[in-house]
Order: sequence, then structure tokens, then C-alpha cells
Amino acid sequence: MSAASMHRLAVDPALAFCRQALERMNVRPEDAHATAEVLVAADLRGIASHGVAHLRRYVDAIRDGTIIARPQEHIVVETPVTATIDAGAGLGPPVSTRAMSLAIDKACKSGVGFVAVRNSNHHGIAGYYAMMALPHDCIGITMTNASPRVVPTFCTNALLGTNPIAVAVPAGDGRRFVLDMATSVVAQGKLEIADQLDQPIPLGWALDRNGVPTTDSHQTLQDLKSRAGAGLLPLGGHGDLLGGYKGYGLGLWVEIFSALLSGAAFSTLTYPKSPTGSPLPANLGHFFGAWRIDCFRPVEDFRAGMDDLLALLRDAPRADGCERIFIHGEKEEEATIENRRRGIPVNDRVWQELFALGKELGVEFPMK
Amino acid sequence: MSAASMHRLAVDPALAFCRQALERMNVRPEDAHATAEVLVAADLRGIASHGVAHLRRYVDAIRDGTIIARPQEHIVVETPVTATIDAGAGLGPPVSTRAMSLAIDKACKSGVGFVAVRNSNHHGIAGYYAMMALPHDCIGITMTNASPRVVPTFCTNALLGTNPIAVAVPAGDGRRFVLDMATSVVAQGKLEIADQLDQPIPLGWALDRNGVPTTDSHQTLQDLKSRAGAGLLPLGGHGDLLGGYKGYGLGLWVEIFSALLSGAAFSTLTYPKSPTGSPLPANLGHFFGAWRIDCFRPVEDFRAGMDDLLALLRDAPRADGCERIFIHGEKEEEATIENRRRGIPVNDRVWQELFALGKELGVEFPMK
Repeated sequence: MSAASMHRLAVDPALAFCRQALERMNVRPEDAHATAEVLVAADLRGIASHGVAHLRRYVDAIRDGTIIARPQEHIVVETPVTATIDAGAGLGPPVSTRAMSLAIDKACKSGVGFVAVRNSNHHGIAGYYAMMALPHDCIGITMTNASPRVVPTFCTNALLGTNPIAVAVPAGDGRRFVLDMATSVVAQGKLEIADQLDQPIPLGWALDRNGVPTTDSHQTLQDLKSRAGAGLLPLGGHGDLLGGYKGYGLGLWVEIFSALLSGAAFSTLTYPKSPTGSPLPANLGHFFGAWRIDCFRPVEDFRAGMDDLLALLRDAPRADGCERIFIHGEKEEEATIENRRRGIPVNDRVWQELFALGKELGVEFPMK
Repeated sequence: MSAASMHRLAVDPALAFCRQALERMNVRPEDAHATAEVLVAADLRGIASHGVAHLRRYVDAIRDGTIIARPQEHIVVETPVTATIDAGAGLGPPVSTRAMSLAIDKACKSGVGFVAVRNSNHHGIAGYYAMMALPHDCIGITMTNASPRVVPTFCTNALLGTNPIAVAVPAGDGRRFVLDMATSVVAQGKLEIADQLDQPIPLGWALDRNGVPTTDSHQTLQDLKSRAGAGLLPLGGHGDLLGGYKGYGLGLWVEIFSALLSGAAFSTLTYPKSPTGSPLPANLGHFFGAWRIDCFRPVEDFRAGMDDLLALLRDAPRADGCERIFIHGEKEEEATIENRRRGIPVNDRVWQELFALGKELGVEFPMK
């Protein structure tokens, strides 16, 4: 896409638009607020696939009943250090924000806290929740399952989601380590971009319906959609030569923590299928956790050590042609600073979509 | 190596030999027992690189003072759900067995338990400790750092260890999921085997000292040894096209949990260097954890769900030419059954080494 068709949307109007659009769909104000925060945070961090572009899908899902605007969210199991929450098929971001807050509360009181969530929906960038732990001198972790798109090693069908893991760790001077990674080689968004640009994808991203590596993003996406086999490769790639079974194992770990501990749907087996063909709630599962650092070691010592480790990596010898060694989350921090100043980047297709959505719902877009 | 030069050593004599050899080195009987158990478990699971072949290195390290035979192990910090242990530069397996037991005790009493360990040494297969959680209806996790062998993305030098993650999860009927993976594409052992056989390694396993992918295992091992750059690639491989920064991030996560939470040495920065050139203890760090399943969901429901998920994966459509879709840990379970019956496989080089070691220490090898 040319730079000319890239718009910028200031943060406060972006938040207000998302919030008001969701409130028009009968979402509670506090839940609309939480969802807007998570969507705009994704755009700020440069992860547009999980940003305001996703608002249309949330609205459509509320309309078709697969997301409940005002769910009966409730705690199913609770101990001083754990809980399981049933999200009542509501939006993912509000329950995830509450679940992570609960995990952090438990960590602040008891040292650690872990909360599993079932009967939820897409919750945006996993890193958002893990990072909530940072101001509390805690390490945060988030996992979520997702609809099946990743092909286990030696298989031909997508049976696991891209199942991300996010881990956020504080360092000194407001720095941090924020790992936020799908356990597949790439997320589906990268295939969609290649498809839109009519470009081949590198061998090593996806398999065709026979389980053979492919460069054809269009056919892969079609086959995935119709559940005709094919899918994304786990981190480590095809077969076992370069460790593909490790990415498959990481994806399975995330599936277990997200769906099996909470009792959510998993793989293709228990994903809800309606006998009439009408869509049903997805019943996704998430997992949130926090460890209080001072329950292991004084926080100042930990932060100082983190600073030394991160500085060592940053200043290490670089390979020919490489400008910089990155710490995970650094690029996203820098994007956030720029996008907060200039407004979040919104491509023309999404801009037009949001304009149309505003018109449908009677919410001004873009707001002044 | 030809099959003719492969010996078999029965489990009980193997355990007794390791135990007696360590006791001759002044290791406490209970610590010698714990170490023998971990070494032989590796051979049973088919991971010979971490098995009885490692005994010679433990003995040599006790001799040169980098491992203390009777360490002053002590708890530095403790809460009902966390602890940090200083291992006093003792053997890795005994303190790791105690640390994981402590994490499990805490989980049994309070729901979850996490224990960080510093000032430790090589502790064998990480999966051994994670699996200790299984009989308690807990999920177990283990991480450990290791001496720097893995090159971060865009760097030329090894700054992270192969930093394994192990996660063990119970299913029904005594089945389980046991992920036990280095966060590099391969462990150093695979380069050593190629070097011994004078064979090239696949592109994608290692980098040369300029940060360029190499097939030369011999030169890579030499450069690694002399800290001249070069090293193993993180899971996901070279650069960022296939997700190498994810493996780098996983390795960094393990480094943080193992070394930064406990206060152990990390990367190349704080690894002990002696001014006189005489070797110093490694000060490795580990991390152990357990989550009690019934603090999230009834155990029977969890186990039934695990059975369904694992069966779905096992029975899924296979790619052409692939005989089987594996669950992590399955191959190792099958090897254990065979090796328990036939004896652990020991190659001739290791057999001769153990014979010589027995002679040095006055312990019969092989025992009757």
C-alpha cells in the first residue's frame, strides 16, 4: 500500500470511537472502555492486525450472537493464588483485563497468582495483559488458544491455534523485556498481506493440504477456511530437522494451559458446531499469571541485573549488515512513542470500514 | 558407530555404580543417590548425552573444585508459595530434586509453588524434575540456564545457553505430555556427533564466527570453545524470516527465570572468571514450578480432556511418508520401557571411560 493512503488517527478520538461504537451495541461502558484500550494499544505498538481494524469483527460478532454484549461473567473456582473465570461468551478484552488484574492482586497479596478463563473470545494482543504486571514489580505471563490454524509436525491438518505466549519482565529505568509471540513461524496476518499483494510467501511459513511446504498464500488461506487441510507451520518449521516439533510442543502447552485448565474448547474437537449451521460462541480459553519478584530476590538487585543483561545484548558484536540487536518489545515501545505523537496509523481500507461502521451506529468518524 | 560396539548396562548396577563413584568423591549418600537417579533416567529416556556419560565430568569437577562435594545448601528467601535456594556450588541433581520437591509441597498445600535456585551446576535432563509433579496431580515446569552457546538474532557471539524448558502435564491412564526442549534449534550434542563422524551439519543449526550459517561443526565447536564467536542458532533459525527472534526470546525468558530471579550468573557477563586462570564454580541458575490442577478445574475433567486432545492429535491425518504423529515425551516413554528391560545403551567410548573411572575410584565396573 502506498504511504499516501495511510491515515493517522489521534489516540483519544480512536479510544472514544471504539468505546462509543461498542456502547451502541449494548456493551457496558466499563467493558467498552477496556476493549477500546486493548485495540488502540495494539495500533500504538505497531500491531495493526489486532488494532482498531478488529472493531468491525467484534461488532459483527455481537450482532450474530457469537459474542454476548452483556455476559454473565462469573468465577467458577477460587483459591488465594488461583481462579477460573467463565466469561459468559462476552468480549475477550474486558474479562482478560479483569482476570489479569485478579492474578496481580493475588500476587501482591500472596506472592503469585494464576487465573484461567473459559467461554471467552478473541482478546487482542496477549502482551497487553502480561505488561499489566510491570507497575507492580511483578513478572506477567499470558497465553491464549485460538481457532485451529497450525499443523502439528508430520500432520496435514491445522489442529492448534497460533497460540501466543507473552511474558513481561521489568528492568531498571522503566525498561522491560516483553516477549509476545505466536508459537507458529508467522501469524495468519502475514499470509493475508501476501495474498492482498499477490506475492508468494517464503517456503517455511505454511503447508498445503498434502502437508507439503508451499509458497501459495491464496490457496493456503482458502484451504484453511474450508477446513480442507493446510495451515501454518509451528516455530521451527517443517518436519523435525530444524526443531518444528518444538514449536508444535509450545503450541500444545499453550492449548493445555488456556483450554484444558479452564475447560474451554480445544483444537477441532470441541469447537462448537451448530446443527443448524448458525454460528455459536467460540469458547476460547486464556491463562494469566503474575510472580512477585521480591518473593524470590530484592527487586533492586533484580532490576540491576536485568539492566546489565539487556545492555550486554544491545552492545554485543553485530553480524555483517545488521544494524542492531533488539530486546523483545523494544521496537513496540519505540512505535508507541511515535504513534502517540503522530496518531495511530490506519490504512485506507480500515479507515473506510470504520467510517461505514460509524455511520451504521451513529457514531462520528473520525472524531474531532 | 556400529551396533557391535553398543553395550547394555542393567539399571540397578548402573545406579549403584554412579552412587558409589560419587560417594568415593565424598558426596553425601542421599546426594549421590539423587544424582544417580537423574543420570540413569536420561539414559532410560534415550538421552545419552545427559546420562551416565556425564558422570566423569561430575567427578572431574569435584576434583578441580568447581563442584563442591558437600555444599552448604541453604534457603535464602521463602514464602508459602515461593523460595530461593543457594545450592552452595554443589551437584545440580540433588538440589534440583529438593527444589522441585519443595515446589510440589507448596503446590499441594497452597495450590502453586515456585522455587528458584542459584549457585548450582549442570543438573541433567530438565524433564526429570518437571515430571516429579505428575503423581501429585500437578503440572510441573523446569527451566535452567547454561553456559553461553546460542547466538541472539543479528549477533555474532554466543550469549545465551541452550536454556531448556520442560513442562509435564498428566493425562488419563498414566499418559502424559512431557515437553523437554532446548530453546536452540539443536543442542550442542548434535554438533559433537557430526564432528565425531566427520559429517557436515545442515545449514540452520549453527553460525560461524562472522554470524553466517555454516555446515562446519568442527570449526564451530573450536570457535565456541575459544570464545571466538560462532554458536548455535535459536529455535526459528537465522535472521527473522522464520522466527529466529522467537527462539532468542524464549532463551532470554529462561535466562531471566533461571538466573535473574535467583541471582545466579548470566550470559557471558557474570560467569565467574578466575584471575589466576584456575576454574571457579559455574553459578548456574534453575527455576522449578508446580500448579495443582484442582485449583482450576476438577482433575477428572482435566484428565478426560487431555485424553481427548492427545487422541485427536495421534489419530490426525498424516503427511505423505510420515508414519506417526507424536505426543511430546512418547518416544522417551517407549525408550524407557525397552531400556528398562534390555539395560541402558552405553557406547564403547563411554563404557571404557566408566571402566577407567571405576578403576581410579576403586568401584567395580560393570557390576554384577
